Amino acid sequence: MPGATTIGVVCKDGVVLASERRVSYGYFVMSKSGKKVFRITDNVGAACAGLVADMQVLTKEVAVYLRLYSYERDRLASVKSAAKVMANLLFERRLYPYLAQTIVGGIDDEGPSLFVLDPLGSVIDDKYASVGSGSEIAVGVLETEFKEGMTIEQGRELVKKAAKAALARDIGSGNGLDIMTITRSGIKEEGEPLT
Amino acid sequence: MPGATTIGVVCKDGVVLASERRVSYGYFVMSKSGKKVFRITDNVGAACAGLVADMQVLTKEVAVYLRLYSYERDRLASVKSAAKVMANLLFERRLYPYLAQTIVGGIDDEGPSLFVLDPLGSVIDDKYASVGSGSEIAVGVLETEFKEGMTIEQGRELVKKAAKAALARDIGSGNGLDIMTITRSGIKEEGEPLT
Amino acid sequence: MPGATTIGVVCKDGVVLASERRVSYGYFVMSKSGKKVFRITDNVGAACAGLVADMQVLTKEVAVYLRLYSYERDRLASVKSAAKVMANLLFERRLYPYLAQTIVGGIDDEGPSLFVLDPLGSVIDDKYASVGSGSEIAVGVLETEFKEGMTIEQGRELVKKAAKAALARDIGSGNGLDIMTITRSGIKEEGEPLT
Amino acid sequence: MPGATTIGVVCKDGVVLASERRVSYGYFVMSKSGKKVFRITDNVGAACAGLVADMQVLTKEVAVYLRLYSYERDRLASVKSAAKVMANLLFERRLYPYLAQTIVGGIDDEGPSLFVLDPLGSVIDDKYASVGSGSEIAVGVLETEFKEGMTIEQGRELVKKAAKAALARDIGSGNGLDIMTITRSGIKEEGEPLT
Amino acid sequence: MPGATTIGVVCKDGVVLASERRVSYGYFVMSKSGKKVFRITDNVGAACAGLVADMQVLTKEVAVYLRLYSYERDRLASVKSAAKVMANLLFERRLYPYLAQTIVGGIDDEGPSLFVLDPLGSVIDDKYASVGSGSEIAVGVLETEFKEGMTIEQGRELVKKAAKAALARDIGSGNGLDIMTITRSGIKEEGEPLT
Amino acid sequence: MPGATTIGVVCKDGVVLASERRVSYGYFVMSKSGKKVFRITDNVGAACAGLVADMQVLTKEVAVYLRLYSYERDRLASVKSAAKVMANLLFERRLYPYLAQTIVGGIDDEGPSLFVLDPLGSVIDDKYASVGSGSEIAVGVLETEFKEGMTIEQGRELVKKAAKAALARDIGSGNGLDIMTITRSGIKEEGEPLT
Amino acid sequence: MPGATTIGVVCKDGVVLASERRVSYGYFVMSKSGKKVFRITDNVGAACAGLVADMQVLTKEVAVYLRLYSYERDRLASVKSAAKVMANLLFERRLYPYLAQTIVGGIDDEGPSLFVLDPLGSVIDDKYASVGSGSEIAVGVLETEFKEGMTIEQGRELVKKAAKAALARDIGSGNGLDIMTITRSGIKEEGEPLT
Repeated sequence: MPGATTIGVVCKDGVVLASERRVSYGYFVMSKSGKKVFRITDNVGAACAGLVADMQVLTKEVAVYLRLYSYERDRLASVKSAAKVMANLLFERRLYPYLAQTIVGGIDDEGPSLFVLDPLGSVIDDKYASVGSGSEIAVGVLETEFKEGMTIEQGRELVKKAAKAALARDIGSGNGLDIMTITRSGIKEEGEPLT
Repeated sequence: MPGATTIGVVCKDGVVLASERRVSYGYFVMSKSGKKVFRITDNVGAACAGLVADMQVLTKEVAVYLRLYSYERDRLASVKSAAKVMANLLFERRLYPYLAQTIVGGIDDEGPSLFVLDPLGSVIDDKYASVGSGSEIAVGVLETEFKEGMTIEQGRELVKKAAKAALARDIGSGNGLDIMTITRSGIKEEGEPLT
Repeated sequence: MPGATTIGVVCKDGVVLASERRVSYGYFVMSKSGKKVFRITDNVGAACAGLVADMQVLTKEVAVYLRLYSYERDRLASVKSAAKVMANLLFERRLYPYLAQTIVGGIDDEGPSLFVLDPLGSVIDDKYASVGSGSEIAVGVLETEFKEGMTIEQGRELVKKAAKAALARDIGSGNGLDIMTITRSGIKEEGEPLT
Repeated sequence: MPGATTIGVVCKDGVVLASERRVSYGYFVMSKSGKKVFRITDNVGAACAGLVADMQVLTKEVAVYLRLYSYERDRLASVKSAAKVMANLLFERRLYPYLAQTIVGGIDDEGPSLFVLDPLGSVIDDKYASVGSGSEIAVGVLETEFKEGMTIEQGRELVKKAAKAALARDIGSGNGLDIMTITRSGIKEEGEPLT
Repeated sequence: MPGATTIGVVCKDGVVLASERRVSYGYFVMSKSGKKVFRITDNVGAACAGLVADMQVLTKEVAVYLRLYSYERDRLASVKSAAKVMANLLFERRLYPYLAQTIVGGIDDEGPSLFVLDPLGSVIDDKYASVGSGSEIAVGVLETEFKEGMTIEQGRELVKKAAKAALARDIGSGNGLDIMTITRSGIKEEGEPLT
Repeated sequence: MPGATTIGVVCKDGVVLASERRVSYGYFVMSKSGKKVFRITDNVGAACAGLVADMQVLTKEVAVYLRLYSYERDRLASVKSAAKVMANLLFERRLYPYLAQTIVGGIDDEGPSLFVLDPLGSVIDDKYASVGSGSEIAVGVLETEFKEGMTIEQGRELVKKAAKAALARDIGSGNGLDIMTITRSGIKEEGEPLT
Repeated sequence: MPGATTIGVVCKDGVVLASERRVSYGYFVMSKSGKKVFRITDNVGAACAGLVADMQVLTKEVAVYLRLYSYERDRLASVKSAAKVMANLLFERRLYPYLAQTIVGGIDDEGPSLFVLDPLGSVIDDKYASVGSGSEIAVGVLETEFKEGMTIEQGRELVKKAAKAALARDIGSGNGLDIMTITRSGIKEEGEPLT
């Protein structure tokens, strides 16, 4: 699977998702601007590691299902529902799977939450997580410094710190960070020129 | 198959099921909070070892079939029926099997009972059992200390003791224990901070 | 190769080496007290990841060569010489190599220094390093918090912090830490009950 | 073979050799300070791509042979002789080869010259060359901008430009550049903090 | 996959696409005039590397869909839409994919833009890109000399320079360059006798 | 085996040998100046296709044996003897062969002659021959235009014509031609800037 | 794929297509009179290399489609259309392809033209071409002697010369030549007793 560092952290008032931007085939950096963080609905996002084609199709398909759901019931789907819909899409293709590990995060009536999904559709509820070739390095930092109840701003700083270590030591990750913060006031996307 | 320690014990007045929470890919602990014990109906539960996606889909599917059964006949399915339904689902997918070993347990008109299922759908009725990478170690304790007719409380202590030994010596297991006790008064779930 | 987390850090006044104690075959913890940190001479030590037999033979053989050297010239060998001797032993067995990654560290006339060796005998001079299955996780912490010119005490704390993260997330590592500090006043070994 | 970008350029008054410093195993950056440029004699150097152990042993062995040669004949060996000695060492181990591609460069009575050697001992005389995983990218720049008769300073700038492009697009290369310039006034080594 | 050098560059006032013309099977040059640059609509073009049959069918199919789109809505499709349509066609055939890497470029209401597509349908927005066996060499030049806001004429010169280096060093590329420039005044195609 | 076009032609008053200069690894042109035509003695030369290291060692070894022969008997070896010596060296290494196809040519008391050798040491006497990846194309021309009794000058022109066709259609060959003519007046080497 | 030598050349006033007649299985010549040149319409022909069954079915099917086209529109299809129809038939069978390489040639309102098709349906417009096991040898001659604007008679002589060289050196080709010339005055077929 292609390299990546993808991180998610649950904070007191929202969720932070982030992925770096390197897209490489073998040793060659095909692109320095591959976006791996996706807006799913107005309260849910996803950050992925894996084949870019697969993560693009998978997140788009989930977004379509959730839009239908909102349209029919006139309310936003919960974060858990978003994760479950994605898990079903992944599981259905078990024999020729989407090559993507995904962190789905967002905020709903029950507060902020985060789910990690593997390519076969396992769904695991967690407080912080990292996937991709740089995940072990990032987790070293998260494990040491994550605390429950951080503010979104503290979460953003922790994610940047973990990503910085991963980009320094994982050759599959690089070329800056896309950060998405999801709070009651909506989704905010920003870039961070990490090397 | 990923590591796990999953244990089930039949007591005088109910059944105890338990699984630890580690989810690892290779040497890396992907999550410290993977739930592997599932409520199927109001009198039946299942504890699994294997791929998390497969155990999630499998137990959900069994639960749906048993709910239909209860709805149509206005009574709860027996523990044996639950195990048989799961065995059929496993057998049907024999060519691309669910990678999950399962202990189904519960209580019905005939009293408490326990069934062990392998990924191909074999069903074996037993008084105590353990599956997963830590099962040999746990069974060492069960074999020595299991007695028929224990109380639920004694059963809980035995399961914790067996799990403790397994977590100390099986690197695929760790990060605490989810325990489910099923008696006439219903299903009770609790966590145990074992390391 | 079996799992391990092995760490080395150069401080202002010495070097800190450390390894956890788990020895596992497959998923089974063979021993909870495998020592992977070795005293080579009075000013040089080594910490290893890999096959226990290989690291024991390798470090003993280096120790013998360096004792001969000291005896003939009446002075201790430099840390670099120790690393070079070990590299030669590794290189000679290139076709059926010792399965061991090693961090050689110590203090000599030129001050404290650290060398990383792979199983084929590459020697790389570094300020901090980690090898073994938990190395990525440990490096996440080292990368974020290492500063040149730390005291031995700060170095010890950093090594413990990095090891703690690695033991929490690498199933191949566990069961406590052996720490060796090498300063002008000699080699000090101690144990740390990390889980 | 591990990644690397190694470059050599013949100038009017000398030779420039350079290698970046990344040492990675799989996706993990094992070291950020692996030296791949080696001083062979007072007028010849070598820059390598491949296994660090092999390049360290190979260049050391060549240096020993050339020192004997100088001692016996009381003059420095020519650059071509250095390349030929290395080629013989490589060819002798044809069945279990040193995994190293090497650029040998230097200056002698016939002026500055450069030779490229593959792991089997082919020797090719060239004016500029690049080996390693980033060589195609570096060659794109060299091919476009190399001119015969450049000064050492122009050569250094060209090498840095080519290395910069390679480090930006080859994930196997990174963490700064070691540059060696060899002129009539001797060998000069310096570091360049490229990212 | 057969060799090729295919390049795309976004300029201030348009886009430049180019491919060389060699078609080889193994070492044999089957044709010296294989066209790999295709007109899709009046404002969008595509340049490909891969199997000639696949690129011919793929680009023709996209052209048909976009013509229908224009016919129904009475306006030209955007460049992004063209890329998305092609990505869908590629993704649908995931199990027996079109062996073609494609650069789609053009100009629309939002100005000039460029998208890189791999055989599985990943779509990545970029400012300059190269695909095919000569891409690493070409990217060495692009990486060094690309500047945002170049004129079409500067873009054409840069593309020729990058292609020249690639054709000099990649044996899978050769026999001249087909260049397509897409501006507000339409699509212009020309040949360049590069060797 | 790497690509090459190597040609030999017997003329009335001597022999013409030629090889192009491309050295490629995979699709990448490692060098544009790889010499594949070698002077063996004052009346015999060899032109090779294959691994550069092997052709360099093989021809050097043959040269040494023939020099010994001349020294002991005070006369030059015949062309046939040179070919036989090379054949013996090739045959001796039958289990791990030199990867080189060779055309040995020269002039002696019996006039000009040419021998083709495969990697296992077969020796075939011929009037014109071509080996390497471009040999079929070159032979198309030789077959059509070779006549017995050509002058050296006509032979040179025919070799250039055949090489030109091969370089135009064989991607493994390129970057100019090294031509060696061997007559009673000795060996003459020259370069030809073919593309 | 079975051997063959198939050649096509565009002349000033028409097109020449030719194929030899050998059909062999392994080393055995199954037939000395296998016809591989086919009349498609009154202005288009095809010459093939590959499985005889496949080329017979493929050319017949194209002929049927083009007859329908002529019938419906009351005019002959262009040579390009004929090539495109054949390409579509080839592409449709991509997963179990026709094993045939084809040269389609003819004359229409835009003058004489030639297209080369591979088994997957690639269509390449060319001035001269050769396919089959003897194609490299034939191309050596074509490459050297083809000139734009030859008369049909000169074209016929060139084709015979190229075929003669190929039949002399390719064992997959032999037993005489079938030549088809297509001019404004129609299609003419003849045999040539080449050996």
